[in-house]
Amino acid sequence: MIKKISIIGGDVRTIKLIEMLEKDKYEISTYGLEKNFTIPMNKCNTLQECVEGADIIIGPIPFSNEEDITTPFGNKKIKIQEFIEAAKGKIVVAGAIRQDIFEQAKEKQIEMIDIAKREEFAVLNAISTAEGAIQIAIKETSKNLHGNNILILGFGRVGKVLAKMLQGIGAKVACEARKNTDIAWIKAYGYEPIELVDLKENLHKYDIIINTIPYVVLEKEELQKVKKDALIIDLASNPGGVNREEVKEAGIKFVWALSLPGKVSPVTSAEFMKQTLDNIFKETK
Amino acid sequence: MIKKISIIGGDVRTIKLIEMLEKDKYEISTYGLEKNFTIPMNKCNTLQECVEGADIIIGPIPFSNEEDITTPFGNKKIKIQEFIEAAKGKIVVAGAIRQDIFEQAKEKQIEMIDIAKREEFAVLNAISTAEGAIQIAIKETSKNLHGNNILILGFGRVGKVLAKMLQGIGAKVACEARKNTDIAWIKAYGYEPIELVDLKENLHKYDIIINTIPYVVLEKEELQKVKKDALIIDLASNPGGVNREEVKEAGIKFVWALSLPGKVSPVTSAEFMKQTLDNIFKETK
Amino acid sequence: MIKKISIIGGDVRTIKLIEMLEKDKYEISTYGLEKNFTIPMNKCNTLQECVEGADIIIGPIPFSNEEDITTPFGNKKIKIQEFIEAAKGKIVVAGAIRQDIFEQAKEKQIEMIDIAKREEFAVLNAISTAEGAIQIAIKETSKNLHGNNILILGFGRVGKVLAKMLQGIGAKVACEARKNTDIAWIKAYGYEPIELVDLKENLHKYDIIINTIPYVVLEKEELQKVKKDALIIDLASNPGGVNREEVKEAGIKFVWALSLPGKVSPVTSAEFMKQTLDNIFKETK
Amino acid sequence: MIKKISIIGGDVRTIKLIEMLEKDKYEISTYGLEKNFTIPMNKCNTLQECVEGADIIIGPIPFSNEEDITTPFGNKKIKIQEFIEAAKGKIVVAGAIRQDIFEQAKEKQIEMIDIAKREEFAVLNAISTAEGAIQIAIKETSKNLHGNNILILGFGRVGKVLAKMLQGIGAKVACEARKNTDIAWIKAYGYEPIELVDLKENLHKYDIIINTIPYVVLEKEELQKVKKDALIIDLASNPGGVNREEVKEAGIKFVWALSLPGKVSPVTSAEFMKQTLDNIFKETK
Repeated sequence: MIKKISIIGGDVRTIKLIEMLEKDKYEISTYGLEKNFTIPMNKCNTLQECVEGADIIIGPIPFSNEEDITTPFGNKKIKIQEFIEAAKGKIVVAGAIRQDIFEQAKEKQIEMIDIAKREEFAVLNAISTAEGAIQIAIKETSKNLHGNNILILGFGRVGKVLAKMLQGIGAKVACEARKNTDIAWIKAYGYEPIELVDLKENLHKYDIIINTIPYVVLEKEELQKVKKDALIIDLASNPGGVNREEVKEAGIKFVWALSLPGKVSPVTSAEFMKQTLDNIFKETK
Repeated sequence: MIKKISIIGGDVRTIKLIEMLEKDKYEISTYGLEKNFTIPMNKCNTLQECVEGADIIIGPIPFSNEEDITTPFGNKKIKIQEFIEAAKGKIVVAGAIRQDIFEQAKEKQIEMIDIAKREEFAVLNAISTAEGAIQIAIKETSKNLHGNNILILGFGRVGKVLAKMLQGIGAKVACEARKNTDIAWIKAYGYEPIELVDLKENLHKYDIIINTIPYVVLEKEELQKVKKDALIIDLASNPGGVNREEVKEAGIKFVWALSLPGKVSPVTSAEFMKQTLDNIFKETK
Repeated sequence: MIKKISIIGGDVRTIKLIEMLEKDKYEISTYGLEKNFTIPMNKCNTLQECVEGADIIIGPIPFSNEEDITTPFGNKKIKIQEFIEAAKGKIVVAGAIRQDIFEQAKEKQIEMIDIAKREEFAVLNAISTAEGAIQIAIKETSKNLHGNNILILGFGRVGKVLAKMLQGIGAKVACEARKNTDIAWIKAYGYEPIELVDLKENLHKYDIIINTIPYVVLEKEELQKVKKDALIIDLASNPGGVNREEVKEAGIKFVWALSLPGKVSPVTSAEFMKQTLDNIFKETK
Repeated sequence: MIKKISIIGGDVRTIKLIEMLEKDKYEISTYGLEKNFTIPMNKCNTLQECVEGADIIIGPIPFSNEEDITTPFGNKKIKIQEFIEAAKGKIVVAGAIRQDIFEQAKEKQIEMIDIAKREEFAVLNAISTAEGAIQIAIKETSKNLHGNNILILGFGRVGKVLAKMLQGIGAKVACEARKNTDIAWIKAYGYEPIELVDLKENLHKYDIIINTIPYVVLEKEELQKVKKDALIIDLASNPGGVNREEVKEAGIKFVWALSLPGKVSPVTSAEFMKQTLDNIFKETK
């Protein structure tokens, strides 16, 4: 059973998370959060001191850059190697961990869990992403969402939640999908289904197009069909679903919006991390 | 490419389906629908004549009883063996086909497709099932659904669609699920999530409990927690999710509602069959 | 302040109401409910005994037929005159009271309040009426409501609530209204607005037409435009919104559904009576 | 019948409006829009030339400041007196017209119509105001709206539309109202009703409070009950519903958001103006 938790690095979400974990009576030790003074916390002098006796270690999201752990509130850098050495034999939960780090960790008998890959965390984060997209859509257009035609490309987690919210605001929502089952779900939820083969001939209808597909769907040929005064929002990570050169060329308003949950609603993101950790804790019991 | 379709047996849904297929200019021949006079159709004198030159054969849902093909509109019986013999080497689409019939068909080089197992058909049918459940719920209670506490057991296809509709009517919807991901989706869609471990202690809250889980969840112990004036509706096929003996013993109002789509909305069911067939036709092209 | 309540006559809703009033510690005396044995209650031997010392008298909904108070659970009749004589100088709350009874009551210094005319009660009852209409619509059609085109005539209380619920189930809802403001609200709530002048040319689009307007809107000329396999539900009281002769002539399926709240959800209706009484009690304090 | 329309002054909404009126084949003359070059239009040299033969004159929203007509795109000022002199005997439609101007206009036989006071325009504008409020709410909080407790003060036009949208996004919406009928409607629409007398004891529950009531509701005493990390948005015009001094004193995040429709969605606002003008034109026929 998890009793002592070591927290290393992290941003404002991590600080909110610590508050919640302390309410649940876990024993917390931290390192790499020295510059945070919003809440009192047990700050250790060394990494070793921090991980000593910990049942689980919680690292940042994203875990690291090329060399160092993410520590915006820390007053010294923590090398990836240093972290791995200290975490030897333990369970580590962090987010967006590079594949090679996973492998290094394995060699040191570290059980590394990427929270960002947990399905339930991804579903919950889709809520925050959808709200961020709605804020952008209201801000960047001179029309209401209500009564307007909005196309969502892709019917995965973000597509599903966003479609529901936009319909809830009163937009006329169409969703593009490839699989027959997704098309059936789109009908069941009351959106207009657009099959991939019919995409091009339908593009001219939409005032706002929001992409959630992680590869380029809107090339020159497609962009030529889009209304000149439409807004395209891309929520997919690199390379995204829209040809950047061509969208600029076409003169269509374009917003590439990444990592919305941490920006739009860090407190809720921390709650979602907490809920996911609760599940992880139960599983590692 | 599919041009000629042979239709054998079937109920009112099949007749509606024939109307739609004729609108799409398919060449139709039928057998086992002799007593239907609502629409004109090409009725063959023999099974052999009917399947002659057909690119695909459409059989009934459900396909058969112990011995015969389902032919409520036919004026003579068609033995399963007879059907298989006639269909040799062809593609057959029907519904709820027994496993042993699949095997016999295989021996005769028949490609047998069970439409009821098609995911998109099952999703669309969930819409009809949900509406049927709503009708029962309004009819069998002396309270409004609006403002009432309703628990759905299981968050599969029917659970998802039913939860959305009940929320749309204004009920306070809770959904029970086991998987963390389902719990996350239940939150995302704005229902109250109930984890299986917490089910028993929550059961007393609900005026209506609707089961969609295909094994017994509500045993004596659980039923004792349910309100005496609650309504339980079971949508799961045999054995269902409710211990029949115990629910009677407990004196709780109970409705076991099976095969709702065909009963509640045969015309829409036919449309869903048509949409699924369109997909099957594309795949067999 | 209301302490002692006298209940005279009434149906199953009245009995539920008594349960709720007793929970609130009111002192209750009853007359004309002799045959009820579902809950224990203080049954008086005479009308005079029942009203003695009462701060308020609650009568039935509807209040009476031509001669007698409505007492389905009573074992003797109570004449209107007899009631008025006994209630002299008191406050009486009942429902659907005839105008001439109001006047007679006034002469006896009775303050007569018609609960059915209270705006908040009418709004709440619209919820029950809407659910009843939905049950009928599911039952009487062979198509799903989901995805279907439904027209509501009139955008008053029932129109508003019904439109919301039908949209919540997934129907494509159009609402007919005359006033510019109603048309604006219909747009704001995301339904298709149909102005009265455009009604005739739009009627052919709908699978289900539900009338809430209390005068005949659908005459022969209009009915000729309606789909032959449509369903028309009339929720308006006499004369209703549909020419009965002509709808029969036209061979269109027609259901005239009156007084749904008491039939569909008597328990909820009693709750709504209770909520309205709470408001009346506050006002008479 | 309206054929020739004279447009005097106005902002970007007026320009969009001209586009729509020209599509409808009205003959347009303009004055006070000299600096606009986004669309071609018939620009007159003098006010007199512009109004000559016009069936109706459309002025700006708001109509004027202390002395001059609102002409952000004009290259000279137009005095109120000058406008009134020129409009003698005509119908003028403009917005937010001061009472004394109405009276002056009357003396010159001008029929002055304030579009902002048209009920249908106000309803439609509520849609834009609600979207603007949602954008602010997402932006100014570090939590999601989804799953959060939001209180709306007042259940008028903006309150109704905003409540629906916030519920559509997945927020838990409570609405405060005074009238019994409004409380009934709040229940019917599925929000939590808060009666004014119960407001103070409930204020601590909400993460976001949005006021739509045009007089001060939240004084010191009320603000002391509000969560320290809540967000208060005031949508009511001067004096608004929140004591400005006290909210600052209390250290609660506060946004006073006025005139959102023109800012958030000028194009849709122009469409709403057009729809309202269509109604006015019909009435003046």
